Amino acid sequence: MRTQVPHRWEWVADKKRKATLAKIPVEWILPEHVIKDAASRRKITGSFIEALLSDRECAITNITSPVLIERICERQYTSTEVTLAYCKRAAFAHQLNNCLHEIFFSDAIKAAGELDAYLANTGETSGPLHGLPVSLKDQFHVKDVETTMGYVSWVGTFEGEKGTGQEFNVESQLVEELKSLGAVLYCKTSCPQTLLLGETVNNLIGSTMNPVNQLLSCGGSSGGEGALLALGGSTIGVGTDIGGSVRIPASFCGVYSIKPSFGRFSYRKVANNDPGQTIVNSAIGFMSTSLPALDLFMESILSTKPWLRDPDVVEIPWRPHLKQQPKKLCFAVMRNDGMCTPHPPIARGVGIAVEAAKRAGHEVVDWQPPPHSEGVAIHGACLGADGGHDVWKQLAILHEPLIPQMEEMYGGGPTDPMPVPEYQDYALKRLRYTARYMEYWNSTVEFTGTGRPVDAVIMPVAPHAAVIPNRYFHYGYTEIADLLNFTAVAIPITTVDKSVDQTPDKFEPLNDEDLKNWKAYDADIYDGAPVGIQLLGRRFDEEHMISIAEEFVKLL
Amino acid sequence: MRTQVPHRWEWVADKKRKATLAKIPVEWILPEHVIKDAASRRKITGSFIEALLSDRECAITNITSPVLIERICERQYTSTEVTLAYCKRAAFAHQLNNCLHEIFFSDAIKAAGELDAYLANTGETSGPLHGLPVSLKDQFHVKDVETTMGYVSWVGTFEGEKGTGQEFNVESQLVEELKSLGAVLYCKTSCPQTLLLGETVNNLIGSTMNPVNQLLSCGGSSGGEGALLALGGSTIGVGTDIGGSVRIPASFCGVYSIKPSFGRFSYRKVANNDPGQTIVNSAIGFMSTSLPALDLFMESILSTKPWLRDPDVVEIPWRPHLKQQPKKLCFAVMRNDGMCTPHPPIARGVGIAVEAAKRAGHEVVDWQPPPHSEGVAIHGACLGADGGHDVWKQLAILHEPLIPQMEEMYGGGPTDPMPVPEYQDYALKRLRYTARYMEYWNSTVEFTGTGRPVDAVIMPVAPHAAVIPNRYFHYGYTEIADLLNFTAVAIPITTVDKSVDQTPDKFEPLNDEDLKNWKAYDADIYDGAPVGIQLLGRRFDEEHMISIAEEFVKLL
Repeated sequence: MRTQVPHRWEWVADKKRKATLAKIPVEWILPEHVIKDAASRRKITGSFIEALLSDRECAITNITSPVLIERICERQYTSTEVTLAYCKRAAFAHQLNNCLHEIFFSDAIKAAGELDAYLANTGETSGPLHGLPVSLKDQFHVKDVETTMGYVSWVGTFEGEKGTGQEFNVESQLVEELKSLGAVLYCKTSCPQTLLLGETVNNLIGSTMNPVNQLLSCGGSSGGEGALLALGGSTIGVGTDIGGSVRIPASFCGVYSIKPSFGRFSYRKVANNDPGQTIVNSAIGFMSTSLPALDLFMESILSTKPWLRDPDVVEIPWRPHLKQQPKKLCFAVMRNDGMCTPHPPIARGVGIAVEAAKRAGHEVVDWQPPPHSEGVAIHGACLGADGGHDVWKQLAILHEPLIPQMEEMYGGGPTDPMPVPEYQDYALKRLRYTARYMEYWNSTVEFTGTGRPVDAVIMPVAPHAAVIPNRYFHYGYTEIADLLNFTAVAIPITTVDKSVDQTPDKFEPLNDEDLKNWKAYDADIYDGAPVGIQLLGRRFDEEHMISIAEEFVKLL
Repeated sequence: MRTQVPHRWEWVADKKRKATLAKIPVEWILPEHVIKDAASRRKITGSFIEALLSDRECAITNITSPVLIERICERQYTSTEVTLAYCKRAAFAHQLNNCLHEIFFSDAIKAAGELDAYLANTGETSGPLHGLPVSLKDQFHVKDVETTMGYVSWVGTFEGEKGTGQEFNVESQLVEELKSLGAVLYCKTSCPQTLLLGETVNNLIGSTMNPVNQLLSCGGSSGGEGALLALGGSTIGVGTDIGGSVRIPASFCGVYSIKPSFGRFSYRKVANNDPGQTIVNSAIGFMSTSLPALDLFMESILSTKPWLRDPDVVEIPWRPHLKQQPKKLCFAVMRNDGMCTPHPPIARGVGIAVEAAKRAGHEVVDWQPPPHSEGVAIHGACLGADGGHDVWKQLAILHEPLIPQMEEMYGGGPTDPMPVPEYQDYALKRLRYTARYMEYWNSTVEFTGTGRPVDAVIMPVAPHAAVIPNRYFHYGYTEIADLLNFTAVAIPITTVDKSVDQTPDKFEPLNDEDLKNWKAYDADIYDGAPVGIQLLGRRFDEEHMISIAEEFVKLL
């Protein structure tokens, strides 16, 4: 009998996996029995992972980003101690949950030491994010660190190309900004191959599961971020979102997230799937264990005036005055987008939000915008316009296989791209649809009772909680904000409770997809999974939406 | 012998021309001998056209927009009287110079009457542009008025389509904004077929020549605007600019113009050539007989918050504080873009600006950005990406011929569009080039001596003054601002003086195009033509650039 020779990409992936693990200091390598124990449990967040840490490490890693910065600046903790605690917890998270692509703890510890020295020598902090450990989705380039974006084919290359002199040598503009603000970067988190998936699966690390309920996916595409935040290995992370990619994993993992409008933060020198497709843009997004962290983070980044360096960033400074809200707000609610009915826990989550708003004296009206189905169709056409040309170009480098979840979109190799006149027509369709949506939003001033149009729309993030692997059928709830280039904030609301969240006896499916999604619900499997909702705002509405979300958190 | 039967498009064009002339009140129809006299002269602006008007009509039509509004609001003039004066002068301008596509004087006079009644009844003005007559390039839709954009094929249609219910029934967002501000709309001005020409020629009206020197073109594509402003038939007009289309005619006709960044003003529901091409965007631009008019106009339009209605407009209100300039400025100068050498009058014009700046104590440094040739190549590829699909679709409606000036770009019918992956790659090329340009701009802080990067770049608008018909070879000087999406202001500097502006004996051409352009110079023909320069600013730099331009006007 002959042994099957592994493919080259399998060798490369295996070597890369081992190299990443080897970057974890030996004293942080977990014993086999702990890893086995973790694998046998449904939930490994909270007390499970914290049992592996000292009380002080727990204390440091269980506070929010703004408090962390405050304590470093008040010299209660050193940046080095904080960095070590986060690196350690992230190292454990990765061993238990497989959520990291890149580990650069030693660079982080060195940077933290420099920050400590700076504070000691000058009595001043190095910026508004002084000492804050920040995790990054593996699309961001950090000097001296690799970026694979979930492609084995990208190992040892710069975005698939060799010998450009750019390998390990490029830094995303946002990364430069974060460093200039005093942030400490220490790891890059996992994402799915192609980035166009609400789960996190690639040929490099396999899958990242949901640490709150390991039967479920952590979501995607900024999935590793969601998992790491849920495990306490980070308080704030940077992801991207073209179809829900920060809101989905945040919601699935029970943390907060904002998808700003594209054009507010810099995407410059960030690796991406099909980066030249600029009709529907992927936006930089932020995920965190708290809303104040998102607020501080965005304000800090904009203080660097990214629009002076990135042609796509618009000159809108952070506007704190937009965080002042009138006493009475008017929310709209969209319980069903007319394409896919949310599972019982999601319907209940939306209901909780609506009731909370009403109890506080806010108005809640129905949301009946131009059909989301139209918007979602335009979104899909734009993202598929290149016929998979970019994806297959990357896969071809090492002949690595497409992940099964992307078969429907890209299976069978590249197809003929859309003709340019048709593609250009989609740019117009997107514009017209968005204008109609804005007109509808403006028109709500007639019935809100506040003298203003609707303040925000309450809606599901997905038709389900953290998805059962291979059961993500409908992205419409998140895609719409990307198509419109609106701001959206995802907040956790509750968790699935199998004793409450039972399916009703009767269900009238809207279509085949709706039926598939409905059948995929399983109260036993979903039990305990986080349930989030999103708050949809208008374009460049980040300040306003953060404060609206904060209002909700107060109400809940 | 048989008579040649005219083509259908010729009939349609003839009928349309006559219908337009028929909209001029009979008492404003000029006698044949005046038209003949005009045709025999080089210059018909100033005293020539003014001889046809009363002193009071001259007084009303020779002041600037802000003064005009002030006088109406102070009841020195009624809006009706003002409107009548501008309609009359525009009617004369059209008969002498062929600069209008659409005449809707009666609507204007009705609107003016309503404004007068409003002021009389309420004691208040209806907005910051109360009573200001505003002319529009024939890309803007005005309810009840046709839009042909220079296509005979569009007569009786909505952008080439019949039976949509949209014919004569759509209003551009900007038009709605202008009306809401109290502006009075009265005519739409001529533009070339395809809009991609620095002259104004189409099958509907033939050519619009330069009223300052009728041997030359008025420029394009907002050519009718330039001519009408030079003839005093308007104080402010709205055009568009994707390759220089407001700056070129302004400069050729001796008036002021600003090309704001795309995204500052609304292009929504404005007809356009190949409107789905969104890599290099056509921007709304303004042209006027004065700079303060442009300032007031832009501030007024932004007070309507166009970003609430147009998905492409960015939420940046007018920022008057950016008009405060430090005492010492640093200008850069680009005398030659390395592709095409400016004719002697233009070189002299740039020199006058540089000397004026130096005399006032400002710094002037050399401008050595990433080669403009690279940017211009990207610009051309994007504008040509659809293979002429859109242009030929319109021409095919009535089988009207392509104008000869566009033969090089579109001749021979539509060609294969660029493949989508290549087109998407150009989106990235544009971004990277722009980022490099911004980096260069930022880097100038090192040598300006002001502690700031360069404030603005002094450069030619074109390598020649108002062009001799069929001799426009190089658009690089204007295209670069569109590619970069930067702000640029064109200001008049001097006029061609054949006794001074002689070609030197020796000329080393940079390339064939350069040689062709150089050979096209003829001091006798160009004598008396306006010479303008442009001031290039950064993105969304409108407030700053207006004040920089005002500083120049003071110096000159």
